Amino acid sequence: MRPFTVFERLSKAFHDYPSLSRILVVSTISGGGLMAYSEVNGSYSNNGVETRTRKKKVVLLGTGWAAASFLKSLNNSSYEVQVISPRNYFAFTPLLPSVTCGTVEARSVVEPIRNIGRKNVEMSFLEAECFKIDPESKKVFCRSKQGLDSNGKKAFDVDYDYLVIATGAQSNTFNIPGVEENCHFLKEVEDAQRIRRTVIDSFEKASLPGLNEEERKRMLHFVVVGGGPTGVEFAAELHDFVNDDLVKLYPKSKNLVQITLLEAADHILTMFDKRITKFAEEKFSRDGIDLKLGSMVVNVNDKDISAKTKGGEVSTIPYGMIVWSTGIGTRPVIKEFMKQIGQGNRRALATDEWLRVEGCDNIYALGDCATINQRKVMEDIADIFKKADKDNSGTMTVKNFQQVMGDICDRYPQVDLYLKSKGMRGITDLLKQAQAENGSNKSTELNIEELKSALCHVDSQVKYRHLGQFAPLGGEQTAAQFPGDWVSIGHSSQWLWYSVYASKQVSWRTRVLVVSDWMRRFIFGRDSSRI
Amino acid sequence: MRPFTVFERLSKAFHDYPSLSRILVVSTISGGGLMAYSEVNGSYSNNGVETRTRKKKVVLLGTGWAAASFLKSLNNSSYEVQVISPRNYFAFTPLLPSVTCGTVEARSVVEPIRNIGRKNVEMSFLEAECFKIDPESKKVFCRSKQGLDSNGKKAFDVDYDYLVIATGAQSNTFNIPGVEENCHFLKEVEDAQRIRRTVIDSFEKASLPGLNEEERKRMLHFVVVGGGPTGVEFAAELHDFVNDDLVKLYPKSKNLVQITLLEAADHILTMFDKRITKFAEEKFSRDGIDLKLGSMVVNVNDKDISAKTKGGEVSTIPYGMIVWSTGIGTRPVIKEFMKQIGQGNRRALATDEWLRVEGCDNIYALGDCATINQRKVMEDIADIFKKADKDNSGTMTVKNFQQVMGDICDRYPQVDLYLKSKGMRGITDLLKQAQAENGSNKSTELNIEELKSALCHVDSQVKYRHLGQFAPLGGEQTAAQFPGDWVSIGHSSQWLWYSVYASKQVSWRTRVLVVSDWMRRFIFGRDSSRI
Repeated sequence: MRPFTVFERLSKAFHDYPSLSRILVVSTISGGGLMAYSEVNGSYSNNGVETRTRKKKVVLLGTGWAAASFLKSLNNSSYEVQVISPRNYFAFTPLLPSVTCGTVEARSVVEPIRNIGRKNVEMSFLEAECFKIDPESKKVFCRSKQGLDSNGKKAFDVDYDYLVIATGAQSNTFNIPGVEENCHFLKEVEDAQRIRRTVIDSFEKASLPGLNEEERKRMLHFVVVGGGPTGVEFAAELHDFVNDDLVKLYPKSKNLVQITLLEAADHILTMFDKRITKFAEEKFSRDGIDLKLGSMVVNVNDKDISAKTKGGEVSTIPYGMIVWSTGIGTRPVIKEFMKQIGQGNRRALATDEWLRVEGCDNIYALGDCATINQRKVMEDIADIFKKADKDNSGTMTVKNFQQVMGDICDRYPQVDLYLKSKGMRGITDLLKQAQAENGSNKSTELNIEELKSALCHVDSQVKYRHLGQFAPLGGEQTAAQFPGDWVSIGHSSQWLWYSVYASKQVSWRTRVLVVSDWMRRFIFGRDSSRI
Repeated sequence: MRPFTVFERLSKAFHDYPSLSRILVVSTISGGGLMAYSEVNGSYSNNGVETRTRKKKVVLLGTGWAAASFLKSLNNSSYEVQVISPRNYFAFTPLLPSVTCGTVEARSVVEPIRNIGRKNVEMSFLEAECFKIDPESKKVFCRSKQGLDSNGKKAFDVDYDYLVIATGAQSNTFNIPGVEENCHFLKEVEDAQRIRRTVIDSFEKASLPGLNEEERKRMLHFVVVGGGPTGVEFAAELHDFVNDDLVKLYPKSKNLVQITLLEAADHILTMFDKRITKFAEEKFSRDGIDLKLGSMVVNVNDKDISAKTKGGEVSTIPYGMIVWSTGIGTRPVIKEFMKQIGQGNRRALATDEWLRVEGCDNIYALGDCATINQRKVMEDIADIFKKADKDNSGTMTVKNFQQVMGDICDRYPQVDLYLKSKGMRGITDLLKQAQAENGSNKSTELNIEELKSALCHVDSQVKYRHLGQFAPLGGEQTAAQFPGDWVSIGHSSQWLWYSVYASKQVSWRTRVLVVSDWMRRFIFGRDSSRI
């Protein structure tokens, strides 16, 4: 849900690695990210006959970012793709906080999944939820969201040749009692729509007769749990919605509304630069958003939320609505599958650098449901050297190395990223620099120690290239942070935010809709009809 | 739900009777319509002191067309208005068939009721449903849609000085078994949204594995009951949605979809000119919409609908979705109230020409929940003559008559409508014509017989002036019928339809949204994401 990861994911998928014959994906994990790519051709490109007679069936679970990237990148007509997901659309999730308050309409951020993907790849979709993966029989077991009334059949199974798991994650409640039952989450479009209705409901309820001031205040007390970018953006959106639009229609509620943000850490937006954190905290304080830092939620019931300070003191606050936004957890189907394959104690599916789920054949996982155990260059340095040193002379030329460079970059994407991050045009620069540092002569021959020295830093490279991150703070102000310690806060960043988000839409339709929603909001404000 | 009545109602309310100190309303009843207006000032304008010390409280039940017209017309700051309705918005209902297929978005046709009404009139809104009216204690009893969790209180009562009932009507099921439980209606915005989701669900369900062809066909069999403008428009919209958009995304479903329209009468669109009926029936036949005329539904269960032909033969058809659109019935709260006031055997509340509910004090009713028993000029002709004949001479001058004309037109709106329909500028023309027809001399004196003769036709005037009616037939073709036997069918009428509907929006916001929805549909088609 980190706004800018979108930009990164897509731009990386399409610009940095335009090789479309690969299953190319970018996956993010909380607190950082990884990018890797994999090639499914390998295993059966040597079986030309079968390829021609029967298409291999790729079953893709999910219609989120990872699944959409996969579909957009797969350009090989020898596969047929069967997508299975309970949602028949892709949603531009970074705009969900905007949907909660009607700044953008729900329908403007969704695109039917059948419209995503390339024309030459046969693709079909099943609106169903996978509840079990059986790697033995190469089947997934699914059930339709809606009861199929005929014959009472709901569950069915689907065979696969290759399985791509991109089911994403779910909100993490940390098993805190009452959270599941009483809080709103902000993962799906339906969540955002429900939040919007609940906000309006709260104002309507608080306008009814027969209530005392305390009850009205409780109904209009909106609590946000989690000071990450999503929670902060939602709090800011809600503040704008209330102050720009709702107080005009519900003037009596003006002095009763309160927004509180609870954060367990000492600051909000901790993954951002300190200047942004400081600006955001000061702005929220000016806006009257009550920031309760160092507050760990311990219990929620239908009217009150209890939080413990670091000193151990528990305070209980009455609330009207809670939005819970504290990060992601594992979906049950993935948990179950991890148990089956001996990864039961993990948080996400472990894959190798080809995104193959470890311990499974022909199963790939990507996105929020997976983490990549990337192979290290330095561990394989002897093999790499051997491959380049074709004549087994104990030394290799730069030219030798260039010849195997493509394979190495495929397998160890950190090499390529490292070169880019250092502003080098190719491996030659790296080898030359290493030779220069080691005081070697200008010979084009390297031994294994020189190669080790040249590549010693590449494994430290975070493969997920951080292009930047936004945190909208309300009042047409956004904080933005880009690599190289560049921080921008204010109205200009808001316009940058508008441009980036408009440009990153998956279709022209959604782009036009999102931009026209923004224009509509500028002119007419947000709608508060309870539909 | 007759498209064009909107145009009529609003244009009549604002142009024909711009007298804004009156509670001016236009009400339509099925199969025709009536228009009347009433003045609530009368009873207490002579009590200037009280007016200044306490505002009179007008409770308005409803937020539909009648209620919105009332709010827009009420321009007297000596009243405070308390609006009570389960919906906090006004909906432009003639566009609901468009909402069912995403041609127009739900939010584009709604406007918060708090935005409607004049600034100088104090207005507040309660989101609640009135379930009982007590004219004795001058109270209405209401309950909130949502359970108020605090103290378990849900119901409350509201006092009124004047009560204006504009709750509208509900769909009429004719008590046919299974209709209520299994059919979709098309009265509210939520109905339209639910239909849209159900259409998409049907296509998704029919795409799931493990179904035979018969089951898939059943799921994709859409039945419309009722061949009035709403049913016809929905069938046409659905046909366009399926053929323009859905078959591209669900190509396998193309040959399985069927739309059937059941109509009890021998033709559809019976209230239109025969040329329109013929054109519509032929177009539907070309489009493959199965018209079953003379089919009276007798029973509906969860999978089948049974209809009886005029010959008495009952046939049962499996269906996936039914939309029921056969006219309007009385809401329970109105039924109950009619029983209380001795109107129990009626279909709608009877009012006098001032819209006062007969047998009640200070209670007014308008819109689909009411019918007007209009006073006849000819029954009161002696009193009218007496009023004009101030000197009791047995004759009156045209000037005498002109002096009381304002009062007469207030009480007998048919007079004004009659003059307009005959292209007369005023009563002078009418009187002169009567004298000429009777061979009287050019004297300006009339006796009572001459007055009778002049006014003998006014009571025949249908007060509801029919400005025309549209019936969209799909494929960018609309049938339109206007007074004077003018019928227009085709693309040009579709453009007229667009213009009229755009111009009749209640706010600039909805106008811009509706027009941009149409443009979006032209360019990108309709969205089929299941949200």
